[in-house]
Amino acid sequence: MTSLSPQPYKGTRDYYPEQKRLQNYIFDTWKRVVERFGYEEYGAPILENIEIYAAKSGQELVNEQTYTFTDRGGRTVAIRPEMTPTISRMVAARRQELAYPARLYSIANFMRYERPQRGREREFWQLNVDMFGVDTLAADVEIISIADAILKEFGAKKGDYVLRINNRKFVHYMMAEYLGLDAVAAHQMIKLFDRRNKIDQQAFEEQALEILGSEQAGDLEKINQIIAAQSIEQLPEALQHVSAIEEIKTLFDGLNKAGVDGAIFDATLMRGLDYYTGTVFEAFDTHPDNNRSLFGGGRYDGLVGLFGAEPISAVGMAPGNTMIENFLEVHGLLPQNTSKTDVYVVVVSDEALDDARGIAAELRSSGINVEVDITGRKLDKQIKTAVKKGIDYLLFVGPQDVATGEYSLKRVENEQEEKLTVEQIAEKFST
Amino acid sequence: MTSLSPQPYKGTRDYYPEQKRLQNYIFDTWKRVVERFGYEEYGAPILENIEIYAAKSGQELVNEQTYTFTDRGGRTVAIRPEMTPTISRMVAARRQELAYPARLYSIANFMRYERPQRGREREFWQLNVDMFGVDTLAADVEIISIADAILKEFGAKKGDYVLRINNRKFVHYMMAEYLGLDAVAAHQMIKLFDRRNKIDQQAFEEQALEILGSEQAGDLEKINQIIAAQSIEQLPEALQHVSAIEEIKTLFDGLNKAGVDGAIFDATLMRGLDYYTGTVFEAFDTHPDNNRSLFGGGRYDGLVGLFGAEPISAVGMAPGNTMIENFLEVHGLLPQNTSKTDVYVVVVSDEALDDARGIAAELRSSGINVEVDITGRKLDKQIKTAVKKGIDYLLFVGPQDVATGEYSLKRVENEQEEKLTVEQIAEKFST
Repeated sequence: MTSLSPQPYKGTRDYYPEQKRLQNYIFDTWKRVVERFGYEEYGAPILENIEIYAAKSGQELVNEQTYTFTDRGGRTVAIRPEMTPTISRMVAARRQELAYPARLYSIANFMRYERPQRGREREFWQLNVDMFGVDTLAADVEIISIADAILKEFGAKKGDYVLRINNRKFVHYMMAEYLGLDAVAAHQMIKLFDRRNKIDQQAFEEQALEILGSEQAGDLEKINQIIAAQSIEQLPEALQHVSAIEEIKTLFDGLNKAGVDGAIFDATLMRGLDYYTGTVFEAFDTHPDNNRSLFGGGRYDGLVGLFGAEPISAVGMAPGNTMIENFLEVHGLLPQNTSKTDVYVVVVSDEALDDARGIAAELRSSGINVEVDITGRKLDKQIKTAVKKGIDYLLFVGPQDVATGEYSLKRVENEQEEKLTVEQIAEKFST
Repeated sequence: MTSLSPQPYKGTRDYYPEQKRLQNYIFDTWKRVVERFGYEEYGAPILENIEIYAAKSGQELVNEQTYTFTDRGGRTVAIRPEMTPTISRMVAARRQELAYPARLYSIANFMRYERPQRGREREFWQLNVDMFGVDTLAADVEIISIADAILKEFGAKKGDYVLRINNRKFVHYMMAEYLGLDAVAAHQMIKLFDRRNKIDQQAFEEQALEILGSEQAGDLEKINQIIAAQSIEQLPEALQHVSAIEEIKTLFDGLNKAGVDGAIFDATLMRGLDYYTGTVFEAFDTHPDNNRSLFGGGRYDGLVGLFGAEPISAVGMAPGNTMIENFLEVHGLLPQNTSKTDVYVVVVSDEALDDARGIAAELRSSGINVEVDITGRKLDKQIKTAVKKGIDYLLFVGPQDVATGEYSLKRVENEQEEKLTVEQIAEKFST
C-alpha cells in the first residue's frame, strides 16, 4: 500500500501548539475587547444554502471563490466565505425575540478558493462584530471605535495604522450625479477603484476611460481630482456640500469625541462587497513591509430584509487572523509564546510513578496544569521533553522524595532549585 | 424578488447568545480539565483529502456519511467527519520535531450526513484528546482518567455514568480463535455487536446465525454467554486467561489507583471505527431518560504509520457537545446562563450620550464589560432591553448625574439602588 500524504489540504494550515497559542492570543484579545463593549457571542453553521450569498456578496465571491457543492439530498450548499449573510439570516429568523440594539460577535473559520499567498489562505479565521437595530451614526462610531480599541489592545501605537473612511452614499453621488454614470458603469467604476492599489496609474486611466466612454472622456480629470484629495476640503467644490459629506463629517466628529485618532477620509475607498449602504471603512497598516488593508467593515442596512423580515439596520466589521498576525510581526508586537502547562513531573524511577500521579492530581485540584512523564525513560530524556515543550518548572519525584515528603522543584529558565512540600508547591503557583 | 429562507441548513444549529453561552461553558470545562493534565491545543483545517478517511475510518462513515466533493482544482475533498485521521496526519508530518509523549487536544466542528435526531446533528463539535508516543497502558489509564475527570468537573456524581471498557485484541481473540470466524465474518460480527442495543434479541440472534453459518450455529450459545458476562470472572473459562484479558486487568488496576470508580468490563463493547487496536472504552449515561453512549475512545497504534512515518502509538477520545448537553440536562447539571456584560448604561437624555460613552470607556479600562444604549429611546425601553439581555446592573447617566459626579447603579435582581462615583463603580466590580 502506498502511504498517504501528511500534508494539509492546499492553502490551509495545520496549527501545532506553538501556532495555536498565537492564534489563541489573537482570539482572546478580540474576545476581551468586544465583550468590554457588551457584545455577545453567537455561533453559526459552516454550511449555508448558496442563495444567501448569491443575493448580495458580489459575483466574484460566489462564482469564483466559494466552495460550493451539492449535498446527498440534492441541496446546493456553500462552505461560508464570510459571516455577514449568515448573521443577517439569524437576526431575520429571530427578529421578534431579539433585544435591540443587538450587539453580536463570533470567531469562526471561513473558506475561499483563492491562490494562496502571504496574508491570504483558503481557510482563515475572522472576528465578526455587528450591531443591529440602530440607524444613526452612533452605531458606526462605536464599530470604528472597537476597530481602534482592538489594534491598541494588541499594542499598536498612533501612526502604526490609519482608519480610512468613506460612505457609499457619497460614492453613489460621485458615480451617478457627479460623473453621470449609469448603474452598470458605476458598478464597474467601483470595482476599478477597488483594484486601484493593485495596478499602475496608466492601467487605471485606460480602464477608467473604457468605463467612461468617449463622450465622457473629459471626466478622467474629475476622477484624478478625487483621487488627489487628501481631505474633504480638497474635494472638487461640487462634491463638498452634498448630504453624504455631512454624514461623514458627523461621523468624524463622533470619532474625535470617542478618542479615535488616526481616522482619515478617503474618497477612493469602496470595499468590495455589494451590500454596503452607508459608512465604509478599513484599517490600513502604515508599515512599509506590510503596507496594506488589515480589515474593514461598514453599514449594510438592506441585508436582513432579504430574508422576509422588515429591514433592520446593521453595521459591522471583520478582522481576520492572518492579517493581524502579519501586523503584529512587522510592528514587533508578537507576544511571548509560552506553554500553558505549569509543571512537568519527572519520574525518577518507575516505582515512584503512582506517587507522581497522586501528587499531580493534588496539584491539579489547586488549579495547576501538571504533565506527568509516564514513559519510564532516563531522566535526561524526560527533562529534554519538558524543555522542548517550553514548560518552565520541573518537579522531580523519586522514592526518597516520597519518603521525606519534600520534592525538588527546578525552574528551567534560571536553573534555580528548591525543596518544597506539595502544599508549598500548590501555594507557590496560586500566587 | 422572493425572499430567502432564514432557516439554517438542514440538521445544523444556529447558536444565539443564550445557546452559545451553554456551548462555551462546555468548551471551557473541557479546556480547563485537559490543560490541567498538560495537554496542548492544536487546530486543523475543516477540509481534508478524502483518502485519509478511506483508509481506516470504516465504510459507512466514508461512503454514506461524509460530505465529499471535488474542488475547483479537481481534488476530492471531505469536510472532516472526525479528527483522529487529521491529528495522526499532523503527528506524522512533524514526527521528528514533536516532543514525546505528545499530549494534544482540540475543540472543533465536524459534519456527517445523517438523519437529524436527538443528540445527533449534521454539524457537531467535539473535544479530541490524544496522547502519542506511549505504548504502555499508563497512557490508556490517563485518557480514561481524563474522561472521568471531565464528567466530574461538570458536576456528575458516582453512578450518573459508567465507563465501559474492552480491548480490541480480546475482541479479535474472541472472533478468530474462540468463535473461529474468518476476517470477513469477524468484521460483520463486530458491526452486529455494535448495533446490539438498537435491535431486539431475536433480530440479533437471526443476524448472528447468518454470520456464523450453519456449520457453526452452535456458537450462538457461546455468544450469548459472552453477552451475559458482567465481569471477567463470568466469561467462559476458555476466555478468562488469554493475554488480552491480562491487559484489561492491568488497566483496571491502574484506574483504581487513579481513583476512577465506575469502570466496568464489557465484552460486547466494540466501538465502530476500524482503526482501534487495543483498549476501547465509552462513557455511558445511566439516567433512564438518556440511557446511551455519551462518548468513547481507545488505542489506535496503526494510524500514524499510514502517513509514511514509523508507527507511533496513540490513544485518545472525543466527547461531543450535544451528548454532553443532553447529559447535563437529564441530570439537572445545566449551569446558570447569565450575560457576560456587567453593566448596561441607560442614557437618561440625549445630551448625556457623550458623557455616558466617556464613563463606559473609563469602566472598560478597569476590565468591566459595559454596554451603552445609544438609541435615544425612552427609559423604559432601554431598561427592557437590558433585562431581556439578562444584564444584572443598570447605570443611569443623565445631565444632573454628570453635574454631581454620582450615578445611580441599580441591580435588576433585587432592585437595590446606590449612588456611586465612577471610581466606586470600578472598584465594586473589581472585587
